[in-house]
Amino acid sequence: MMDLNGGPRRGIVFILSAPSGAGKTTISRAALGAIAGLTASVSLTTRKPRAGEVEGRDYHFVSDEDFNRRVGAHEMAEWARVFDASYGTPRAPLDRAIAAGEDILLDIDIQGASQIRAKYPADAVTIFVLPPSFAELEGRLRGRGTEDEAAIGRRLKRAREEASAYPEYDYLIINAEVGDSIARLQAVVNAERLRVARLRGEFAPWQL
Amino acid sequence: MMDLNGGPRRGIVFILSAPSGAGKTTISRAALGAIAGLTASVSLTTRKPRAGEVEGRDYHFVSDEDFNRRVGAHEMAEWARVFDASYGTPRAPLDRAIAAGEDILLDIDIQGASQIRAKYPADAVTIFVLPPSFAELEGRLRGRGTEDEAAIGRRLKRAREEASAYPEYDYLIINAEVGDSIARLQAVVNAERLRVARLRGEFAPWQL
Repeated sequence: MMDLNGGPRRGIVFILSAPSGAGKTTISRAALGAIAGLTASVSLTTRKPRAGEVEGRDYHFVSDEDFNRRVGAHEMAEWARVFDASYGTPRAPLDRAIAAGEDILLDIDIQGASQIRAKYPADAVTIFVLPPSFAELEGRLRGRGTEDEAAIGRRLKRAREEASAYPEYDYLIINAEVGDSIARLQAVVNAERLRVARLRGEFAPWQL
Repeated sequence: MMDLNGGPRRGIVFILSAPSGAGKTTISRAALGAIAGLTASVSLTTRKPRAGEVEGRDYHFVSDEDFNRRVGAHEMAEWARVFDASYGTPRAPLDRAIAAGEDILLDIDIQGASQIRAKYPADAVTIFVLPPSFAELEGRLRGRGTEDEAAIGRRLKRAREEASAYPEYDYLIINAEVGDSIARLQAVVNAERLRVARLRGEFAPWQL
Protein backbone atom coordinates (compact mmCIF):
# COMPACT_ATOMS: atom_id res chain seq x y z
CA MET A 1 0.00 0.00 0.00
CA MET A 2 1.21 3.48 -0.82
CA ASP A 3 1.82 5.43 2.36
CA LEU A 4 1.27 8.95 1.10
CA ASN A 5 2.94 10.27 4.23
CA GLY A 6 6.30 9.53 2.73
CA GLY A 7 5.41 10.83 -0.73
CA PRO A 8 5.30 8.69 -3.90
CA ARG A 9 7.44 5.62 -3.23
CA ARG A 10 8.49 2.24 -4.60
CA GLY A 11 6.89 -0.92 -3.21
CA ILE A 12 8.76 -3.16 -0.77
CA VAL A 13 9.41 -6.92 -0.88
CA PHE A 14 9.32 -8.10 2.75
CA ILE A 15 10.95 -11.51 3.24
CA LEU A 16 10.27 -13.69 6.27
CA SER A 17 12.59 -16.65 6.94
CA ALA A 18 13.09 -18.89 9.97
CA PRO A 19 14.48 -22.22 11.09
CA SER A 20 11.75 -24.85 10.70
CA GLY A 21 9.31 -24.81 13.61
CA ALA A 22 9.99 -21.20 14.69
CA GLY A 23 6.45 -20.12 13.76
CA LYS A 24 7.12 -18.28 10.50
CA THR A 25 4.02 -19.55 8.67
CA THR A 26 1.75 -18.62 11.60
CA ILE A 27 3.24 -15.10 11.72
CA SER A 28 3.07 -14.71 7.96
CA ARG A 29 -0.65 -15.74 7.79
CA ALA A 30 -1.59 -13.53 10.74
CA ALA A 31 0.40 -10.62 9.27
CA LEU A 32 -1.46 -10.77 5.96
CA GLY A 33 -4.73 -10.38 7.87
CA ALA A 34 -3.49 -7.76 10.33
CA ILE A 35 -1.19 -5.46 8.34
CA ALA A 36 -2.94 -3.22 5.81
CA GLY A 37 -1.55 -3.10 2.29
CA LEU A 38 0.52 -6.28 2.50
CA THR A 39 -0.12 -8.97 -0.15
CA ALA A 40 1.18 -12.54 -0.25
CA SER A 41 3.27 -13.65 -3.17
CA VAL A 42 1.94 -16.86 -4.77
CA SER A 43 4.67 -19.38 -5.58
CA LEU A 44 4.95 -21.58 -8.63
CA THR A 45 5.32 -25.32 -8.13
CA THR A 46 5.55 -28.42 -10.30
CA ARG A 47 4.03 -30.72 -7.69
CA LYS A 48 0.40 -31.81 -7.90
CA PRO A 49 -2.21 -29.91 -5.84
CA ARG A 50 -3.04 -31.51 -2.49
CA ALA A 51 -6.62 -31.83 -1.22
CA GLY A 52 -8.04 -28.37 -0.51
CA GLU A 53 -5.28 -26.45 -2.33
CA VAL A 54 -6.56 -23.86 -4.77
CA GLU A 55 -4.75 -22.79 -7.97
CA GLY A 56 -3.72 -19.12 -7.71
CA ARG A 57 -4.27 -18.97 -3.96
CA ASP A 58 -1.95 -21.63 -2.51
CA TYR A 59 0.25 -22.04 -5.58
CA HIS A 60 0.31 -21.68 -9.31
CA PHE A 61 0.55 -25.31 -10.40
CA VAL A 62 2.65 -25.64 -13.57
CA SER A 63 4.32 -28.40 -15.58
CA ASP A 64 8.02 -29.24 -15.41
CA GLU A 65 8.43 -27.93 -18.96
CA ASP A 66 6.76 -24.63 -18.10
CA PHE A 67 8.87 -24.22 -14.93
CA ASN A 68 12.15 -25.05 -16.68
CA ARG A 69 11.34 -22.65 -19.52
CA ARG A 70 10.77 -19.84 -16.97
CA VAL A 71 14.05 -20.60 -15.19
CA GLY A 72 15.87 -20.56 -18.53
CA ALA A 73 14.23 -17.25 -19.48
CA HIS A 74 15.35 -15.69 -16.12
CA GLU A 75 11.71 -15.18 -15.15
CA MET A 76 12.23 -16.51 -11.60
CA ALA A 77 13.25 -14.28 -8.66
CA GLU A 78 14.23 -17.42 -6.70
CA TRP A 79 13.66 -21.12 -7.09
CA ALA A 80 14.75 -24.47 -5.69
CA ARG A 81 14.30 -28.18 -6.30
CA VAL A 82 12.91 -29.93 -3.18
CA PHE A 83 12.79 -33.73 -3.46
CA ASP A 84 11.19 -34.33 -6.88
CA ALA A 85 9.38 -31.00 -7.35
CA SER A 86 10.43 -27.42 -8.16
CA TYR A 87 9.22 -24.37 -6.24
CA GLY A 88 9.85 -20.70 -6.94
CA THR A 89 8.77 -17.05 -6.98
CA PRO A 90 8.22 -15.40 -10.38
CA ARG A 91 9.84 -11.99 -10.93
CA ALA A 92 6.98 -10.27 -12.81
CA PRO A 93 4.56 -9.79 -9.85
CA LEU A 94 7.41 -8.48 -7.68
CA ASP A 95 8.57 -6.01 -10.35
CA ARG A 96 4.97 -4.89 -10.87
CA ALA A 97 4.38 -4.37 -7.11
CA ILE A 98 7.64 -2.41 -6.65
CA ALA A 99 6.76 -0.13 -9.59
CA ALA A 100 3.19 0.37 -8.32
CA GLY A 101 4.26 1.22 -4.74
CA GLU A 102 2.65 -1.96 -3.36
CA ASP A 103 4.15 -4.18 -0.66
CA ILE A 104 4.57 -7.95 -0.90
CA LEU A 105 5.20 -10.50 1.87
CA LEU A 106 7.27 -13.56 0.94
CA ASP A 107 7.50 -16.51 3.30
CA ILE A 108 10.62 -18.30 2.00
CA ASP A 109 13.65 -20.29 3.12
CA ILE A 110 17.19 -18.99 3.66
CA GLN A 111 18.43 -19.92 0.17
CA GLY A 112 15.41 -18.26 -1.47
CA ALA A 113 15.89 -15.13 0.64
CA SER A 114 19.51 -14.96 -0.45
CA GLN A 115 18.52 -15.10 -4.15
CA ILE A 116 15.90 -12.33 -3.74
CA ARG A 117 18.31 -10.13 -1.75
CA ALA A 118 20.82 -10.38 -4.59
CA LYS A 119 18.19 -9.48 -7.25
CA TYR A 120 16.45 -6.70 -5.26
CA PRO A 121 19.18 -5.15 -3.07
CA ALA A 122 17.31 -1.83 -2.67
CA ASP A 123 13.73 -3.11 -2.48
CA ALA A 124 13.94 -6.26 -0.34
CA VAL A 125 13.68 -6.04 3.45
CA THR A 126 14.61 -9.29 5.20
CA ILE A 127 13.32 -10.46 8.58
CA PHE A 128 14.54 -13.53 10.45
CA VAL A 129 12.30 -15.24 13.00
CA LEU A 130 13.79 -17.27 15.86
CA PRO A 131 12.05 -19.37 18.53
CA PRO A 132 12.47 -17.99 22.10
CA SER A 133 14.64 -21.06 22.82
CA PHE A 134 15.48 -24.40 21.27
CA ALA A 135 13.90 -26.17 24.26
CA GLU A 136 10.66 -24.38 23.31
CA LEU A 137 11.15 -25.32 19.65
CA GLU A 138 11.65 -28.95 20.69
CA GLY A 139 8.37 -28.79 22.64
CA ARG A 140 6.54 -27.34 19.62
CA LEU A 141 7.89 -30.07 17.31
CA ARG A 142 6.94 -32.78 19.82
CA GLY A 143 3.51 -31.17 20.33
CA ARG A 144 2.70 -31.62 16.64
CA GLY A 145 2.85 -35.37 17.26
CA THR A 146 3.61 -36.01 13.60
CA GLU A 147 7.22 -37.20 13.86
CA ASP A 148 9.25 -39.80 15.78
CA GLU A 149 12.16 -38.95 18.11
CA ALA A 150 14.83 -39.45 15.42
CA ALA A 151 13.02 -37.08 13.03
CA ILE A 152 12.60 -34.48 15.81
CA GLY A 153 16.34 -34.78 16.58
CA ARG A 154 17.23 -34.18 12.92
CA ARG A 155 14.86 -31.19 12.69
CA LEU A 156 16.36 -29.62 15.85
CA LYS A 157 19.90 -30.07 14.57
CA ARG A 158 18.91 -28.49 11.24
CA ALA A 159 17.08 -25.63 13.01
CA ARG A 160 20.25 -24.80 15.02
CA GLU A 161 22.28 -24.78 11.79
CA GLU A 162 19.68 -22.60 10.04
CA ALA A 163 19.69 -20.15 12.98
CA SER A 164 23.27 -19.24 12.11
CA ALA A 165 21.97 -17.46 8.96
CA TYR A 166 20.56 -14.58 11.06
CA PRO A 167 23.44 -12.11 10.35
CA GLU A 168 22.43 -12.00 6.65
CA TYR A 169 19.05 -10.48 7.60
CA ASP A 170 18.03 -6.87 8.30
CA TYR A 171 15.76 -7.53 11.30
CA LEU A 172 15.40 -10.19 13.97
CA ILE A 173 12.11 -11.14 15.63
CA ILE A 174 12.20 -13.64 18.50
CA ASN A 175 8.78 -15.26 18.36
CA ALA A 176 7.74 -15.76 21.99
CA GLU A 177 4.11 -14.68 21.47
CA VAL A 178 2.46 -14.34 18.04
CA GLY A 179 0.65 -11.07 18.87
CA ASP A 180 3.93 -9.41 19.92
CA SER A 181 5.68 -10.73 16.82
CA ILE A 182 2.95 -9.31 14.54
CA ALA A 183 3.27 -5.93 16.30
CA ARG A 184 7.04 -6.02 15.71
CA LEU A 185 6.56 -6.93 12.05
CA GLN A 186 4.02 -4.10 11.77
CA ALA A 187 6.62 -1.66 13.16
CA VAL A 188 9.17 -2.84 10.59
CA VAL A 189 6.62 -2.43 7.76
CA ASN A 190 5.52 1.03 8.97
CA ALA A 191 9.11 2.23 9.40
CA GLU A 192 10.32 0.90 6.04
CA ARG A 193 7.43 2.72 4.34
CA LEU A 194 8.91 6.01 5.64
CA ARG A 195 12.41 5.41 4.25
CA VAL A 196 13.73 8.33 2.22
CA ALA A 197 15.58 5.88 -0.07
CA ARG A 198 12.23 4.55 -1.38
CA LEU A 199 10.92 7.94 -2.51
CA ARG A 200 10.66 8.45 -6.25
CA GLY A 201 12.55 11.19 -8.04
CA GLU A 202 9.37 13.20 -8.60
CA PHE A 203 9.07 13.92 -4.85
CA ALA A 204 9.96 17.59 -4.33
CA PRO A 205 9.24 18.70 -0.76
CA TRP A 206 9.84 22.40 -1.48
CA GLN A 207 6.80 22.20 -3.79
CA LEU A 208 4.58 20.83 -1.00
CA MET B 1 15.99 0.91 26.54
CA MET B 2 17.29 -2.55 25.84
CA ASP B 3 14.75 -4.52 23.84
CA LEU B 4 15.63 -8.05 24.89
CA ASN B 5 13.60 -9.36 21.97
CA GLY B 6 16.47 -8.62 19.66
CA GLY B 7 19.15 -9.93 22.05
CA PRO B 8 21.88 -7.80 23.67
CA ARG B 9 22.30 -4.73 21.48
CA ARG B 10 24.00 -1.35 21.18
CA GLY B 11 22.04 1.80 21.94
CA ILE B 12 20.77 4.06 19.15
CA VAL B 13 21.17 7.82 18.62
CA PHE B 14 17.92 9.02 17.00
CA ILE B 15 18.26 12.42 15.34
CA LEU B 16 15.27 14.60 14.50
CA SER B 17 15.76 17.55 12.15
CA ALA B 18 13.33 19.80 10.28
CA PRO B 19 12.99 23.12 8.52
CA SER B 20 12.06 25.77 11.11
CA GLY B 21 8.33 25.73 11.87
CA ALA B 22 7.69 22.11 10.80
CA GLY B 23 6.86 21.04 14.36
CA LYS B 24 10.06 19.21 15.30
CA THR B 25 10.23 20.49 18.89
CA THR B 26 6.58 19.56 19.53
CA ILE B 27 7.17 16.05 18.16
CA SER B 28 10.41 15.65 20.08
CA ARG B 29 8.83 16.69 23.41
CA ALA B 30 5.77 14.48 22.91
CA ALA B 31 7.99 11.55 21.83
CA LEU B 32 10.05 11.72 25.02
CA GLY B 33 6.83 11.33 27.03
CA ALA B 34 5.23 8.70 24.78
CA ILE B 35 8.06 6.40 23.68
CA ALA B 36 9.48 4.15 26.41
CA GLY B 37 13.25 4.02 26.82
CA LEU B 38 14.04 7.20 24.91
CA THR B 39 16.08 9.89 26.71
CA ALA B 40 16.79 13.47 25.59
CA SER B 41 20.35 14.57 25.10
CA VAL B 42 21.16 17.75 27.03
CA SER B 43 23.16 20.28 25.00
CA LEU B 44 26.01 22.46 26.20
CA THR B 45 25.76 26.19 25.63
CA THR B 46 27.79 29.26 26.45
CA ARG B 47 24.80 31.60 26.55
CA LYS B 48 23.27 32.69 29.85
CA PRO B 49 20.21 30.81 31.23
CA ARG B 50 16.86 32.42 30.39
CA ALA B 51 14.05 32.74 32.96
CA GLY B 52 12.76 29.27 33.89
CA GLU B 53 15.64 27.36 32.30
CA VAL B 54 17.21 24.75 34.56
CA GLU B 55 20.88 23.66 34.46
CA GLY B 56 21.12 19.99 33.42
CA ARG B 57 17.55 19.86 32.14
CA ASP B 58 17.36 22.54 29.43
CA TYR B 59 21.11 22.94 28.92
CA HIS B 60 24.44 22.55 30.60
CA PHE B 61 25.55 26.19 30.89
CA VAL B 62 29.32 26.48 30.51
CA SER B 63 31.89 29.23 30.01
CA ASP B 64 33.48 30.07 26.64
CA GLU B 65 36.80 28.75 27.95
CA ASP B 66 35.26 25.43 29.00
CA PHE B 67 33.42 25.06 25.66
CA ASN B 68 36.51 25.87 23.59
CA ARG B 69 38.66 23.46 25.62
CA ARG B 70 36.10 20.66 24.94
CA VAL B 71 36.06 21.41 21.21
CA GLY B 72 39.87 21.35 21.15
CA ALA B 73 39.93 18.04 23.05
CA HIS B 74 37.47 16.50 20.49
CA GLU B 75 34.93 16.01 23.23
CA MET B 76 32.01 17.35 21.12
CA ALA B 77 29.88 15.15 18.86
CA GLU B 78 28.63 18.28 17.08
CA TRP B 79 28.72 21.98 17.76
CA ALA B 80 28.00 25.35 16.14
CA ARG B 81 28.34 29.04 16.81
CA VAL B 82 24.93 30.81 16.59
CA PHE B 83 25.12 34.60 16.84
CA ASP B 84 27.40 35.19 19.84
CA ALA B 85 26.99 31.88 21.68
CA SER B 86 28.18 28.29 21.13
CA TYR B 87 25.89 25.24 21.29
CA GLY B 88 26.79 21.58 21.06
CA THR B 89 26.33 17.93 22.04
CA PRO B 90 29.08 16.26 24.10
CA ARG B 91 30.28 12.84 22.92
CA ALA B 92 30.62 11.12 26.34
CA PRO B 93 26.87 10.66 27.09
CA LEU B 94 26.27 9.36 23.55
CA ASP B 95 29.16 6.87 23.78
CA ARG B 96 27.94 5.75 27.20
CA ALA B 97 24.34 5.24 25.98
CA ILE B 98 25.44 3.29 22.89
CA ALA B 99 27.61 1.00 25.04
CA ALA B 100 24.81 0.51 27.60
CA GLY B 101 22.15 -0.33 24.97
CA GLU B 102 20.20 2.87 25.76
CA ASP B 103 18.51 5.10 23.17
CA ILE B 104 18.93 8.86 22.90
CA LEU B 105 16.79 11.42 21.05
CA LEU B 106 18.58 14.46 19.65
CA ASP B 107 16.62 17.42 18.34
CA ILE B 108 19.23 19.21 16.20
CA ASP B 109 19.67 21.18 13.00
CA ILE B 110 20.83 19.89 9.62
CA GLN B 111 24.50 20.81 10.15
CA GLY B 112 24.56 19.16 13.59
CA ALA B 113 22.90 16.02 12.18
CA SER B 114 25.54 15.85 9.48
CA GLN B 115 28.35 15.98 12.09
CA ILE B 116 26.77 13.22 14.22
CA ARG B 117 26.12 11.02 11.18
CA ALA B 118 29.82 11.24 10.28
CA LYS B 119 30.93 10.35 13.83
CA TYR B 120 28.34 7.58 14.45
CA PRO B 121 27.67 6.02 11.02
CA ALA B 122 26.43 2.70 12.49
CA ASP B 123 24.60 4.00 15.55
CA ALA B 124 22.82 7.15 14.36
CA VAL B 125 19.33 6.96 12.82
CA THR B 126 18.23 10.19 11.19
CA ILE B 127 14.65 11.38 10.75
CA PHE B 128 13.57 14.43 8.78
CA VAL B 129 10.27 16.17 9.56
CA LEU B 130 8.43 18.19 6.91
CA PRO B 131 5.26 20.29 7.17
CA PRO B 132 2.30 18.91 5.15
CA SER B 133 2.69 21.96 2.88
CA PHE B 134 4.44 25.30 2.85
CA ALA B 135 1.07 27.06 2.84
CA GLU B 136 0.38 25.29 6.14
CA LEU B 137 3.84 26.22 7.43
CA GLU B 138 3.14 29.86 6.48
CA GLY B 139 -0.11 29.66 8.45
CA ARG B 140 1.70 28.27 11.50
CA LEU B 141 4.36 31.00 11.39
CA ARG B 142 1.70 33.69 11.03
CA GLY B 143 -0.36 32.07 13.82
CA ARG B 144 2.49 32.56 16.28
CA GLY B 145 2.02 36.30 15.82
CA THR B 146 5.61 36.96 16.88
CA GLU B 147 7.08 38.14 13.57
CA ASP B 148 6.35 40.70 10.88
CA GLU B 149 5.67 39.87 7.22
CA ALA B 150 9.28 40.37 6.13
CA ALA B 151 10.55 38.00 8.86
CA ILE B 152 7.90 35.40 7.92
CA GLY B 153 8.97 35.67 4.28
CA ARG B 154 12.63 35.12 5.21
CA ARG B 155 11.72 32.11 7.40
CA LEU B 156 9.65 30.53 4.61
CA LYS B 157 12.45 30.97 2.10
CA ARG B 158 14.91 29.40 4.52
CA ALA B 159 12.50 26.53 5.32
CA ARG B 160 12.21 25.70 1.60
CA GLU B 161 16.01 25.68 1.30
CA GLU B 162 16.36 23.50 4.41
CA ALA B 163 13.75 21.05 3.04
CA SER B 164 16.20 20.14 0.28
CA ALA B 165 18.37 18.35 2.90
CA TYR B 166 15.84 15.49 3.17
CA PRO B 167 17.82 13.01 0.96
CA GLU B 168 20.63 12.88 3.58
CA TYR B 169 18.19 11.38 6.13
CA ASP B 170 17.08 7.77 6.71
CA TYR B 171 13.38 8.44 7.32
CA LEU B 172 10.84 11.10 6.38
CA ILE B 173 7.84 12.07 8.51
CA ILE B 174 5.36 14.56 7.09
CA ASN B 175 3.88 16.20 10.17
CA ALA B 176 0.19 16.71 9.39
CA GLU B 177 -1.06 15.64 12.83
CA VAL B 178 1.22 15.30 15.89
CA GLY B 179 -0.37 12.02 17.12
CA ASP B 180 0.23 10.35 13.73
CA SER B 181 3.80 11.68 13.63
CA ILE B 182 4.53 10.25 17.11
CA ALA B 183 3.12 6.87 16.02
CA ARG B 184 5.40 6.96 12.97
CA LEU B 185 8.41 7.86 15.09
CA GLN B 186 7.48 5.04 17.50
CA ALA B 187 7.45 2.58 14.55
CA VAL B 188 10.92 3.77 13.48
CA VAL B 189 12.24 3.36 17.06
CA ASN B 190 10.65 -0.10 17.46
CA ALA B 191 11.93 -1.32 14.09
CA GLU B 192 15.47 0.01 14.59
CA ARG B 193 15.61 -1.81 17.95
CA LEU B 194 15.16 -5.10 16.03
CA ARG B 195 18.03 -4.51 13.60
CA VAL B 196 20.44 -7.43 13.37
CA ALA B 197 23.34 -5.00 12.80
CA ARG B 198 22.94 -3.67 16.37
CA LEU B 199 23.31 -7.06 18.08
CA ARG B 200 26.49 -7.57 20.04
CA GLY B 201 28.94 -10.33 19.18
CA GLU B 202 27.97 -12.33 22.27
CA PHE B 203 24.50 -13.02 20.80
CA ALA B 204 24.43 -16.71 19.74
CA PRO B 205 20.93 -17.80 18.73
CA TRP B 206 21.88 -21.51 18.52
CA GLN B 207 22.49 -21.32 22.29
CA LEU B 208 19.00 -19.96 22.96
